[in-house]
Amino acid sequence: MKIAWIGTGVMGASMAGHLQAAGHELTVYNRTKAKADALVANGARWADTPAEAAADANVIFMIVGYPKDVENVALGDDGILSTATPGAILVDCTTSSPALAVKISEAGDAKGIAVLDAPVSGGDIGAKNAALSFMVGGDADAFETVKPLFEIMGKAIVLQGGPGAGQHTKMVNQTLIASGMIGLCEAMLYAEKSGLDPLTVLQSVGGGAAASWGLSNLWPRMIGGDFEPGFFVEHFIKDMGIALDEAKRMNLELPGLSMAFTLYTKTAELGYGRKGTQALLLALREMNL
Amino acid sequence: MKIAWIGTGVMGASMAGHLQAAGHELTVYNRTKAKADALVANGARWADTPAEAAADANVIFMIVGYPKDVENVALGDDGILSTATPGAILVDCTTSSPALAVKISEAGDAKGIAVLDAPVSGGDIGAKNAALSFMVGGDADAFETVKPLFEIMGKAIVLQGGPGAGQHTKMVNQTLIASGMIGLCEAMLYAEKSGLDPLTVLQSVGGGAAASWGLSNLWPRMIGGDFEPGFFVEHFIKDMGIALDEAKRMNLELPGLSMAFTLYTKTAELGYGRKGTQALLLALREMNL
Repeated sequence: MKIAWIGTGVMGASMAGHLQAAGHELTVYNRTKAKADALVANGARWADTPAEAAADANVIFMIVGYPKDVENVALGDDGILSTATPGAILVDCTTSSPALAVKISEAGDAKGIAVLDAPVSGGDIGAKNAALSFMVGGDADAFETVKPLFEIMGKAIVLQGGPGAGQHTKMVNQTLIASGMIGLCEAMLYAEKSGLDPLTVLQSVGGGAAASWGLSNLWPRMIGGDFEPGFFVEHFIKDMGIALDEAKRMNLELPGLSMAFTLYTKTAELGYGRKGTQALLLALREMNL
Repeated sequence: MKIAWIGTGVMGASMAGHLQAAGHELTVYNRTKAKADALVANGARWADTPAEAAADANVIFMIVGYPKDVENVALGDDGILSTATPGAILVDCTTSSPALAVKISEAGDAKGIAVLDAPVSGGDIGAKNAALSFMVGGDADAFETVKPLFEIMGKAIVLQGGPGAGQHTKMVNQTLIASGMIGLCEAMLYAEKSGLDPLTVLQSVGGGAAASWGLSNLWPRMIGGDFEPGFFVEHFIKDMGIALDEAKRMNLELPGLSMAFTLYTKTAELGYGRKGTQALLLALREMNL
């Protein structure tokens, strides 16, 4: 199968590498060419634009930065839909706007190109270990066609509904995490301030109703003073912004998510935008000085 | 060992029952006598006041309602410390104020009575199955003496520090849960409003960074329309109020916990005080109508 891959950042390069290692013919494009060097050295064809990459591909994957990048790469003058051939499938793995996913899907429909929104969770490590969760929205037949490729890169691969449903599911994921991180960092601050040993506390609270991935994984990192990403604060702010835009569109007030957005924006303003999400603790400490 | 047990509500009756079944001689007191009937039928001695129950006991357990109840039962005219003999140990399993735990401990010291604060997590079911987590503050020797009794009733039994440290640890636990519940209920609301199937969503988000006890246990109950406790909204409000009082005393601002307190107070006002904590979803739905 001829595959085009647009976006070879940390996530994209790992994901595309798995497809390449599985023997798929790859054409790649990235804004910064050097980030595709390894894939090209392993036999991928370089394309100078998304349009060129997409021209003869059966499946076109993209994973880029912000919704405006998604819109340019998919719908722009040199974008994927300007050259993709009828019958091809476009898969957007960027975490992006559900409304934009619907818009791109409609533009694809008009040209006979099925579009799947398929954001992932699992981060750098999940991408590297082919253990990503793919949350997919779009046409069921297109999903079945692409599924064997998803399975090369991930583990939990679930069709959540029509166009946009993958992005909505990712927003549910981020909404869960947003308030969870507030709880995690406030609890750590309380533990510190009250003179408890946070590692001993974990023995009491780690196995019950307070248990979470964050408590098991980020709590020990915070204790060790490790605030490296993991998942970047600035990317989390982007995701929460999308979720809040969608919530507003649905007339939905989500006070916890709004507070998380505000607190993380503050965290970035304090200089921690390129730290991991657990750096909210640093911001809360400074706000409580 | 002669044990006194003050407070035979749902939790206390199960816990005392385990000690009785293990062969310990029990004297019991409860504000509502009928709730101690089963223990008395099984051979426990009834006492008319906490003071009478405590008079000849080696270890005196109490688990009552609010901090004011704790203060009355421990320090009041007919309270435990009015009659307990030097060398006895008082163990308070109520979720109560850390500052009050310190006060009772000091009052005990003056009479040669060691005091442990030992709130639990695990709820009705944990109490019934002898699977509670005991978070303990106080004297290390007293802890070692009581530990075999804790082990009859629980699984994770951890000395967290001096007087009040058990209560502080419980507050950390509740702080984690408070914001976690906001995330859980907001995420469910978002999923519903965006037309997703929450059970299918769980397949995508249940195994990664959004994973939590609440997501595994309460999310399915919410889907099934099951808002029964589990853990009562009104008890959770009590606990968060204590945590916020302590935070204030430590000059600590915890915006997520404050928001959870406000949202759960609203949940109780809407008539859900005797529902489980997942009933926050019902309140958020009504607030978003």
